[in-house]
Amino acid sequence: MIFGSPLLTRLVALFKKMPGLGEKSAQRLALHVLRSDRAAVEELARTLLAVKDQVVLCEVCANVAEGPRCVVCSDPRRTDELVCVVEQPQDIYLFERTGAFHGRYQVLHGLLSPIDGVGPEDLKLAGLASRVRAAGTREVIVATNPTLEGDATALYVGQLLRGLDVRVTRLARGLPVGSSLEYADDATLGRAFEARSEL
Amino acid sequence: MIFGSPLLTRLVALFKKMPGLGEKSAQRLALHVLRSDRAAVEELARTLLAVKDQVVLCEVCANVAEGPRCVVCSDPRRTDELVCVVEQPQDIYLFERTGAFHGRYQVLHGLLSPIDGVGPEDLKLAGLASRVRAAGTREVIVATNPTLEGDATALYVGQLLRGLDVRVTRLARGLPVGSSLEYADDATLGRAFEARSEL
Repeated sequence: MIFGSPLLTRLVALFKKMPGLGEKSAQRLALHVLRSDRAAVEELARTLLAVKDQVVLCEVCANVAEGPRCVVCSDPRRTDELVCVVEQPQDIYLFERTGAFHGRYQVLHGLLSPIDGVGPEDLKLAGLASRVRAAGTREVIVATNPTLEGDATALYVGQLLRGLDVRVTRLARGLPVGSSLEYADDATLGRAFEARSEL
Repeated sequence: MIFGSPLLTRLVALFKKMPGLGEKSAQRLALHVLRSDRAAVEELARTLLAVKDQVVLCEVCANVAEGPRCVVCSDPRRTDELVCVVEQPQDIYLFERTGAFHGRYQVLHGLLSPIDGVGPEDLKLAGLASRVRAAGTREVIVATNPTLEGDATALYVGQLLRGLDVRVTRLARGLPVGSSLEYADDATLGRAFEARSEL
């Protein structure tokens, strides 16, 4: 609530509907808008509409795209042999940044979570099995977070692909590189112990 | 950075310029926009421009306003005898909510902070002395935060009004109501001790 301006109060209410923004952050953003140049506010308004009108989900992998296929799916230099399954579009950049992965992606746009009412039909998974079959994919790496929902989703992807001639793997869990044993939680330490490797 | 969409990446960059938003929050907001209805995005874009075009600062007190004077300054039932000096427009609502204040306001839009290069000329203070004189104000309550910058600003307001026939006061500092001694910091406890009152 900004006392004295229904318009600012309306803008605060719209910001508050966005994820992670409470009353105080929304107020700060609304007043920031008031203090910005008109050109900057115009650019923000224009970009919001352009994103809504021109950004779609890739028809193959559900990554964000500005045409029918995303940049990864339309790149002929990438291999179809590997598919990395991620929760959100922004996760792709994390893998691209490592420079170590040259396969394709599948973006779920969520994780299974019965408690929040998210079931398999809410995830972008429908085309995965036929895609794996058609492209001759050899390995599907499920790169969801090492959480309850991430684990449940990984299991579900594994079941979905059972019977196909494809390896389904999951990112290794263990001690973060550069971390200290002292600060590791029990579940991580237990997992690191269990999955220990030869020197 | 959202891999595969320059438009989304641009939107993330624009959100990141806003106060309190880092890369991850900006990404979350940009993807929220992508998933919203077009009508909701249109409303946000329209409201941003309307705020920029129709919300101004009150010519008397620098509160936000949708005309030359804000709702407080144009209300004839309020008294000119009291003026409450606040840092930001959103602070006004905190006092209005208490229902205990029926005077006017002055909104500084900042606090003195030599380290950040904010001097008196950056605050909306220019008209205060003549306003106090003209309206016959009897008390100016400086309601800035009890911080280094808030204290420095309060002192400055006091100096500015010196020689005028007006009391300049500051909000009481002491233990928050309902708090526990155990959790009070030394400065607060010291201040509460010093400014103790008769039972």
